[in-house]
Amino acid sequence: MSTRIPVVAQLPRLTTNDVLDALRTAFTELAAGTAVQPPQTVMPLPGGGDVITYQAVIGDAYGVKVSPYLPQLNRSAVVTAWTLVLSTCTGRPLLLCDAHTLTVERTAATSALAVDRLARPDAATLAVIGSGTQARAHLRYARAVRDFTSLRMYGRELVQADAPEGVAVARTAEEAVAGADVVLLCTSAAEPVIDATALAPGTVVTSISTNAPRAHEIAPEALADLEVYGDYRPTVTAAACEMVLAAEQGMWSPEHLRGDLPELLTGGCPLASGERPVFFRSIGLGIEDLAIARLLARP
Amino acid sequence: MSTRIPVVAQLPRLTTNDVLDALRTAFTELAAGTAVQPPQTVMPLPGGGDVITYQAVIGDAYGVKVSPYLPQLNRSAVVTAWTLVLSTCTGRPLLLCDAHTLTVERTAATSALAVDRLARPDAATLAVIGSGTQARAHLRYARAVRDFTSLRMYGRELVQADAPEGVAVARTAEEAVAGADVVLLCTSAAEPVIDATALAPGTVVTSISTNAPRAHEIAPEALADLEVYGDYRPTVTAAACEMVLAAEQGMWSPEHLRGDLPELLTGGCPLASGERPVFFRSIGLGIEDLAIARLLARP
Repeated sequence: MSTRIPVVAQLPRLTTNDVLDALRTAFTELAAGTAVQPPQTVMPLPGGGDVITYQAVIGDAYGVKVSPYLPQLNRSAVVTAWTLVLSTCTGRPLLLCDAHTLTVERTAATSALAVDRLARPDAATLAVIGSGTQARAHLRYARAVRDFTSLRMYGRELVQADAPEGVAVARTAEEAVAGADVVLLCTSAAEPVIDATALAPGTVVTSISTNAPRAHEIAPEALADLEVYGDYRPTVTAAACEMVLAAEQGMWSPEHLRGDLPELLTGGCPLASGERPVFFRSIGLGIEDLAIARLLARP
Repeated sequence: MSTRIPVVAQLPRLTTNDVLDALRTAFTELAAGTAVQPPQTVMPLPGGGDVITYQAVIGDAYGVKVSPYLPQLNRSAVVTAWTLVLSTCTGRPLLLCDAHTLTVERTAATSALAVDRLARPDAATLAVIGSGTQARAHLRYARAVRDFTSLRMYGRELVQADAPEGVAVARTAEEAVAGADVVLLCTSAAEPVIDATALAPGTVVTSISTNAPRAHEIAPEALADLEVYGDYRPTVTAAACEMVLAAEQGMWSPEHLRGDLPELLTGGCPLASGERPVFFRSIGLGIEDLAIARLLARP
């Protein structure tokens, strides 16, 4: 006997709202204890590089995402990610999914969920810093949670002809964020790309993780002047480089994290007070990958 | 784009010697540090049960075995196991394999590797305790490493008509092991099935792990009178129930473990002295699953 299961490389049938709803459910179940999110594991490889695994359970689906980081001779690296979903009813595999596209979607949707809970209801001006795949996905998901009337994007090599429709290209990051209600940082920078403390009180800034060593998009010392949230309390403060650096230097403490997504979605933490700029940092979780992958496994 | 990879449910092309050679290579590479065997992880499920993951790297293959244990309403449990193999050259999946059959083969072959290193060259009498799938696989692999002339098997419900060809069915476990050079314990017992200390010096006894809670096949207090080996030093003493119980009761210590398979295969530990009975305990390792699965992934 030799059977085959589908290996999915794209997300053919999912709308922005499908993905947002799936993530809302996942984080709400995580808050309720009916979903499980263990810490990721990192296994070093003998020749250099490593494999990170992210597990999670939601409902009757178990998922493990396996992401090898494989340095090459020319100083580049091959990075892939695959998500295997098993049924916790039958114990049998439902799907093996190329997690590359899926990772982009879930990362952008997670930032948008935070924007939905933290930004003013009438937020009108959106600034996106970065112009790559993540930046464009962030733009798409953010527009699904607020009716932005002014859209700006800044990327080092971005010109107006290459910008998404309706988006004005800024000449500098500072120009992009001036007066913005929401700022989405979507770079692989290893040093600050904006001064978040210079933003107006109530402005929401999101920041993501990349494979870059010590990646961080705002200055560690800025944290003390911001209302700081993260994707998941048990993991974010130990993994977000600006939080680690700020804690090492005694400028901030994980106790100052105001809340995470499970809390934000279930009333378990204070919302933004409007007195300071707001910072939301995501690292990425297996439960986000599974939330989307299990949609693809449905018959 | 949507591609498919093979899901293999059987081991169609592998001989006993293929499997033994693959495991020899794996344990030798583990000794040399060119293969990697991290500890397994156990993730509890919200509704009861758990998922165990076993990772490993050998050569240019990374493997993760995922094994859910899913209790059912009727007090039984669904237990499955799936091995996903990725290339560490391309980062792409090579194979998703039903690990059930594979687990039987690698467990039996691992015991046989130990017999090969620990038993007398002229070992002639083999006793197998248990008559299930593991017992029959153990018989097959043990015969590949020694020319046994007398084969005995004992199982609670085993009758001669159901015994493998050339195997004499014993009426009791004691009858089966009397005068045996090699004794293979292949039960899911949670209490001792033989008195290993009563065996002749130099007799080799192997014992495996099952899903049974607190599974152990010899008495903890017997360990002090045996020359004790395990499959892998970093994991076996913390997982083998008789070793844990003996250590708790101060009757034995992990320091008394004479060696493991990487050491046995590379001259890194003393062989059996012939002065006492010998006990080899295996728990099962991800590297064993990968050693075989990667053979199946070869074009």
